[in-house]
This record gives sequence, C-alpha cells and structure tokens, in this order.
Amino acid sequence: MSGWVAVAGLGPGADALITPEVTMALEEATDLIGYAPYVTRVAERPGLTRHPSDNRVELDRAAHALKLAAAGHRVVVASSGDPGVFAMASALFEALEAGPAAWRAIDIRVLPGITAMLAAAARAGAPLGHDFCAINLSDNLKPWALIERRLRLAVEADFAIAFYNPRSRSRPVGFARTLAILRETCEPGRLILFARAVSTPQEELRIVPLEQATPEMADMRTMVIVGSSRTRMIDRVAGPILYTPRWAE
Amino acid sequence: MSGWVAVAGLGPGADALITPEVTMALEEATDLIGYAPYVTRVAERPGLTRHPSDNRVELDRAAHALKLAAAGHRVVVASSGDPGVFAMASALFEALEAGPAAWRAIDIRVLPGITAMLAAAARAGAPLGHDFCAINLSDNLKPWALIERRLRLAVEADFAIAFYNPRSRSRPVGFARTLAILRETCEPGRLILFARAVSTPQEELRIVPLEQATPEMADMRTMVIVGSSRTRMIDRVAGPILYTPRWAE
Repeated sequence: MSGWVAVAGLGPGADALITPEVTMALEEATDLIGYAPYVTRVAERPGLTRHPSDNRVELDRAAHALKLAAAGHRVVVASSGDPGVFAMASALFEALEAGPAAWRAIDIRVLPGITAMLAAAARAGAPLGHDFCAINLSDNLKPWALIERRLRLAVEADFAIAFYNPRSRSRPVGFARTLAILRETCEPGRLILFARAVSTPQEELRIVPLEQATPEMADMRTMVIVGSSRTRMIDRVAGPILYTPRWAE
Repeated sequence: MSGWVAVAGLGPGADALITPEVTMALEEATDLIGYAPYVTRVAERPGLTRHPSDNRVELDRAAHALKLAAAGHRVVVASSGDPGVFAMASALFEALEAGPAAWRAIDIRVLPGITAMLAAAARAGAPLGHDFCAINLSDNLKPWALIERRLRLAVEADFAIAFYNPRSRSRPVGFARTLAILRETCEPGRLILFARAVSTPQEELRIVPLEQATPEMADMRTMVIVGSSRTRMIDRVAGPILYTPRWAE
C-alpha cells in the first residue's frame, strides 16, 4: 500500500510558524482534508484535491482520509495549531479503532505544530514557564460537571491554565461560569491573558486582572491563559510582559 | 537601539521541526547564546559568534543576552523545544525584571517551537488529545512537596500528564517516588509512554502499563507521558498507537 495519512498541524496562522516537515507533506499530498478555514490556508496546485468540510464532522473527515489512503492516496488532514491538542489526531484514531482491520496497515503519521497556547504565551511573554494545564472548555464531548471539577483542581494545584475553545455562539455561558469559579477560588489580581487570532493580521492581546475580566473578552478565536498565583507582569513602554518565574516558594 | 533578543525554540532535535521564523532569526543574529548542546546544533558562519554555556547558569546567560542587545547586538537565545516551556524565556524575564531599567527598552521576542511533549505525543499517536497538564519533575527550583501535591491533584482531575526532566544523575530518586505515587492512585493498567530523544537518530519509544514501569526507563533525554484513565492503545503490526479520545463519560 503506497498511500498514507499525515495529520498535520498548520500552527496558529502565520506561514512562518509552519514546520518544514508539514510543508513537505503538503507538497507530496494528493488530497487535503479538513475544516474549510484550514484547508483554504493551503494554496491550490495541480495534483492536489482539497476537501473542505464543516465544523463538527471530525469522524466523517477522519474516515474519509483513511479510505482515500487505503486506496493509495497521499492524504494530509489539516488541523490548526498542533493536531494532537484538541484537534484531528484523536478523531483519526477513534475512526481507525472503530473501522475495518485493513485500515491498521495504513501508514499514519502525526506531524506536530505550534499549538495556540504556546503561540499566545510567546507573544505575551512566558505565562506557561512553570507547571501548567490545558483544558478544552467545550462541553460538546464531555459533561460540564467534569470541566468544573478539573478547573477547581487545577486552581488548587496552582497550575497556570490554558483554556481552548472558551466561548462560541453555541456555547455562550460556559466561559461566564468559568470566570465565576475563578472569582470564587483565586485572588482578584490574578492575571489573565486574552490572545485573539495570534500571528494573524487580526491579532489582539489583552492582559487584565481577574476582577476586570468579562466573558465578552473571549470569542471562538481567543486563547485564554490564566496565570498561576506566581504569574507576574513587567511594565514596559512597548507593552507589558506576562511571565511565570521558574522558581516556586 | 537596533539590538534585539529573540528567545527561540529549536524544537526537539530534527531540523524539519524548526519553524521558518526561528531559522530567519538565526540568519540575522550576530550572537547565539545557550546551553552548549543547543548552541552547537546551529552551524557556524561568518558574522555569528556562538556563546555556549553550561547547564544551570540560565540567569547569567539571560543577563549576557540582554547586555549584548543593549549594546546593539542581535542575539538569539537558543532553547530546545519551546522556549516558554521549562526553558529560557522565563529566565530571561527574571533577569529583565531584576536588571537595569534601560533593559526594558530592548526589543525582545519569544519565538515558539515544538515542545518535547507535543513531539513525543505525535510520534506515539495522540495521548494529549484530551485535557492534560505538564509538570517539571526537577526539584532544583521548587520543593518536592509541591511536585507531589500537583501530581496527586492532576491524577484526581484525570488529566493526561506530561513529565519534563523526569530523572537525571543528580536527581535519581524523584521519578521513583513519582511512580510510587502513581501506583497508589491509578489502576495498574494505566498506560505510560517513555519517549527518548524524539526526532533524533537515537529516538526510542516504549509504551508500558504502570505496573511494568520502572525508574530506569527514563533518563535526561526522556519525555514521560502518563495517560488519563481514558487513554487507549490500538495494536498494529507497525507498532502500537497511544491516544486519548476526545469524548469523556
């Protein structure tokens, strides 16, 4: 079988943040599958068929990729950021596990990318410079009670916390609940980064203390990073730096 | 002031995992500062002075970079992986905060890279495909009691857990203690990935259930990822895939 699937991370937006490994896979691919905004980030060229799809059809997309590869195609499944972080890699393996045994002979690679929290952290300074966790605030695939439990334990552990998918039109209330829990459990001055559309022309960064944070500061394109109790700000004319020191206590 | 500092992530080892943004900064730099094994990953060229240093002198290295930039040099501080994850970015900002006020006018950028846990996860499948945390097991800069507390809370939250710096010659016991705590708090079949020297010719991957894990499976070049209770394995002739599904409960 000469086909393959590469689940590739396109990074947060800028071409300068796409690894050469991913660029090479895109050059060799016959087919490109993914959520439409990611697929259209890759230029058309002869020999490449682009298959843009809607959001929330990850398993269909994954099965499509595996079928094409089993038929000899060279398929890139495009994710933004890193494919292994709240993105297409797990969906592909769910489809693989549930699918025909023959699919297990397919050459599958996951090609890492710059995930949103690391791109956002880099632009702001180094808020994830000490122990941290990443929580997906979407309750499409897990109950809200589990998110809330994890959030409370993460605060208790004094992790910096990166929130993926904080808020969307279909999930308007979760992030407001999240801020309410943070207000219960953290000091009012706890620093929060709202990083929108990092590395694109629409990039906007905002650092506020918890007491000033509002749900409207986040949307679908926003990465939210809540500092630990140790996270600090350095004031500068060129804009503040947010960072968490390496030491503790 | 025309000097600058770019704290740049060289990724886990392979050149194909270095972003074009980092490559461009290295081409423009007059000075390259970092732990010797990282500095020597960048080829010598006329116009570039390489300043390799020992391990554990992060603050000296950071101050050196800021001094050179203040004098007009274009300085890359090289980290492996991502500079914001248990690497040089926080050290640089600690030095900046403690240093002369004039340093705050220096142009400082953090250039993200592929951090070890994401490279290791990609090679094994997608073990970080659901909520996860990252804990540095080195107790050089924090008390062991804090590490243990975070570990217990992370298990209670059912995060997948990525351990950086699990074990070294100067810290031989911490990882043994970590495994003992995991044995107390997790089921014996909990899956653990030991990923050594990912993306280099020395790469070795090993997936074992907790009951078979031993401290000797990790060394200074190993990334350890402990799955959540949901993390699964898919058997294949070409080698197993380790992944955490997107859904929970």
